Amino acid sequence: MNNFSYYNKTRYVFGRGEYRNIGKLLRGSTDKVLLHYGGNSAKRSGLYDAVTSALREAGISFLELGGVKPNPSLDLVRKGIDLCRRENISYVLAVGGGSVIDSAKAIALGVVHEGDVWKLFTKEEELTHTPLPVATILTLPAAGSENSPNTVISDEATARKLGFGHEELRPTLSIVSPELFLTLPAEQMAYGACDMLCHIFERYFTNTQNTELTDALCEATMRTIMQQASILRHNPQNEEAWAQLALSGTIAHNNILGLGREQSWTCHALEHELSAVYDVPHGAGLAVIVPPYLEAVRHANPGIFQQWATNVMGVTPSRDSEHVIKEGIRRLRDWYRELGLPQTMAELGIPADADFDAMARGACSVRPGGVLPGVKVLTEADAAAVYRNCL
Amino acid sequence: MNNFSYYNKTRYVFGRGEYRNIGKLLRGSTDKVLLHYGGNSAKRSGLYDAVTSALREAGISFLELGGVKPNPSLDLVRKGIDLCRRENISYVLAVGGGSVIDSAKAIALGVVHEGDVWKLFTKEEELTHTPLPVATILTLPAAGSENSPNTVISDEATARKLGFGHEELRPTLSIVSPELFLTLPAEQMAYGACDMLCHIFERYFTNTQNTELTDALCEATMRTIMQQASILRHNPQNEEAWAQLALSGTIAHNNILGLGREQSWTCHALEHELSAVYDVPHGAGLAVIVPPYLEAVRHANPGIFQQWATNVMGVTPSRDSEHVIKEGIRRLRDWYRELGLPQTMAELGIPADADFDAMARGACSVRPGGVLPGVKVLTEADAAAVYRNCL
Repeated sequence: MNNFSYYNKTRYVFGRGEYRNIGKLLRGSTDKVLLHYGGNSAKRSGLYDAVTSALREAGISFLELGGVKPNPSLDLVRKGIDLCRRENISYVLAVGGGSVIDSAKAIALGVVHEGDVWKLFTKEEELTHTPLPVATILTLPAAGSENSPNTVISDEATARKLGFGHEELRPTLSIVSPELFLTLPAEQMAYGACDMLCHIFERYFTNTQNTELTDALCEATMRTIMQQASILRHNPQNEEAWAQLALSGTIAHNNILGLGREQSWTCHALEHELSAVYDVPHGAGLAVIVPPYLEAVRHANPGIFQQWATNVMGVTPSRDSEHVIKEGIRRLRDWYRELGLPQTMAELGIPADADFDAMARGACSVRPGGVLPGVKVLTEADAAAVYRNCL
Repeated sequence: MNNFSYYNKTRYVFGRGEYRNIGKLLRGSTDKVLLHYGGNSAKRSGLYDAVTSALREAGISFLELGGVKPNPSLDLVRKGIDLCRRENISYVLAVGGGSVIDSAKAIALGVVHEGDVWKLFTKEEELTHTPLPVATILTLPAAGSENSPNTVISDEATARKLGFGHEELRPTLSIVSPELFLTLPAEQMAYGACDMLCHIFERYFTNTQNTELTDALCEATMRTIMQQASILRHNPQNEEAWAQLALSGTIAHNNILGLGREQSWTCHALEHELSAVYDVPHGAGLAVIVPPYLEAVRHANPGIFQQWATNVMGVTPSRDSEHVIKEGIRRLRDWYRELGLPQTMAELGIPADADFDAMARGACSVRPGGVLPGVKVLTEADAAAVYRNCL
């Protein structure tokens, strides 16, 4: 296990009805927030009314900025930054899923950063100030942004999707109420579960040795995600299953599971290029990328793949590790299929003659040394081959 | 699962050599600390010199208060409070195990509390101020105090051992360097592992329903503790096993494993009476108390006990749940024995005619309704019967 430092400042409030306490929970921390959200679903569901009432009761005023889309855009982030600066707002409340929360985090960064916020993402500039505090009310369990120190933003002008991480970007407060998820479409649940699982893959498949505890915690959470998503596929109204899935999604990405492990993030890098160019849902892109990626790297460390196949995918242990691992990946594909997730580029609407070389170049360009890390390091050519194996 | 709120402010720094960074890590937060520790082992090992050098290099002055004993005493806590007040110290650095950290936390409470610090523990008074920040360098993985919001103190005058919890009592900074554990005596490792495991039992054996994720996380951590302690029993110089055990000890008690679960703490309440009267090591007392306790309550919720026996103790599942559970408890006793832990009151040096009724009364007295919670509520008479079943 590697040395590590862990700091997680989020007050994490979980349970039915807890979102109604947003006013009480913010009182004393701020008297004016930017209320950031996506489309009209929060208004239709009554969540918007409940939140704004709770704020008013607590004497907290707010300005609104809606319109966050999946793969949140730099343009809207810039609008939010301008609004906060103009109106002297120093607290951002995100009501939404990972896209809204990521957009809120980017605004929180941009307000305090004297340069161009996008240059933090391209690593041309460094953050020297503490970002504004962000509170969240989660409406879609998937990205784990409610308790992560990361944000991912898309610049539509250059078709680039980039991430930025800083420990002070973890939300100050996050509220997760599972009943808010009961009306989500089946594909959103599937995308979310797929994303959560991949957040663990990026940590679990590692060459770091002596990681018994986090191995076991990763395996426990992977099994739970798969079980609960399967339950929800058949019964989307099962609030207890939503509770388990949502908590799993937070644990999957708050880095408890990654303590002291060398991490990869290569599937995410590969997927972000797909989303940036073709605007596909992140979870759908991951379902297509992950199996060919695992096939491409598994020979570099059969031990961890065999352990995963037996402890997570339920494959009977055997000396034929090749068979065990292949069967594990086959079962993963089956689970994706059970959830209705796409399996090929064609199903994502991405043509066979897409410029995979350019995407591979894009994915590698922001990594140290221009290669993608993991149990096996991938060059641009390797990355392009993974894309083509998704056809 | 029940609603919950989780907030954990500790910066947790883990790995070989990290304790040498104590000065750098504290710089900017304080320029004067109370350096709190136990006996001379820190001086003999060179840890004391390394820590004081690091503090000096960082320009942080310190006053010392050593002498913390297992089952840390109220008297020394009072001395620490006086010292901090007199010398205007507002940061406590604990270098030691759970006893030293608990003592430091009690000092941190007492300095800001205007009344008598002990009355916070007896619940006669309430905390109205934020305790001083506490930093820790752990020398014995066991109590989990390095990341918990609790402290347990013994008043020798009244032979009472009581706990106090507050979210601001989590250390601000905790450093865990596994090489510091290589010289610990075998029985300290065993007491520690036993305590960690029991911290999970107190959360895991619950009547709360729909707890799939935390069930699985608890099981993963229990298995890891048992495996790593068995490795260390045979090879106490295995630094990687110490790393796994120490991280498990933190996770076992920082309440990630207890999220949304009704918790018990009855074994701890029963053991604290033993320690308070007979000054036995906490982990040794738990090894004696736990099996009869599990026997006393298991019929109230066979489902969770069967799950534990199969998922943690490796018992082959069968319809004969009575057999499965009994076999699980038998294996737990075997593991205690393998670690050299006591199994009876006699082995603890507690006579058969000890006043178990008074201890049962003591354990129940500080609980709501005067009974001990858990999968089965225990009255004073039930508690006395558990003690007598340890003979």
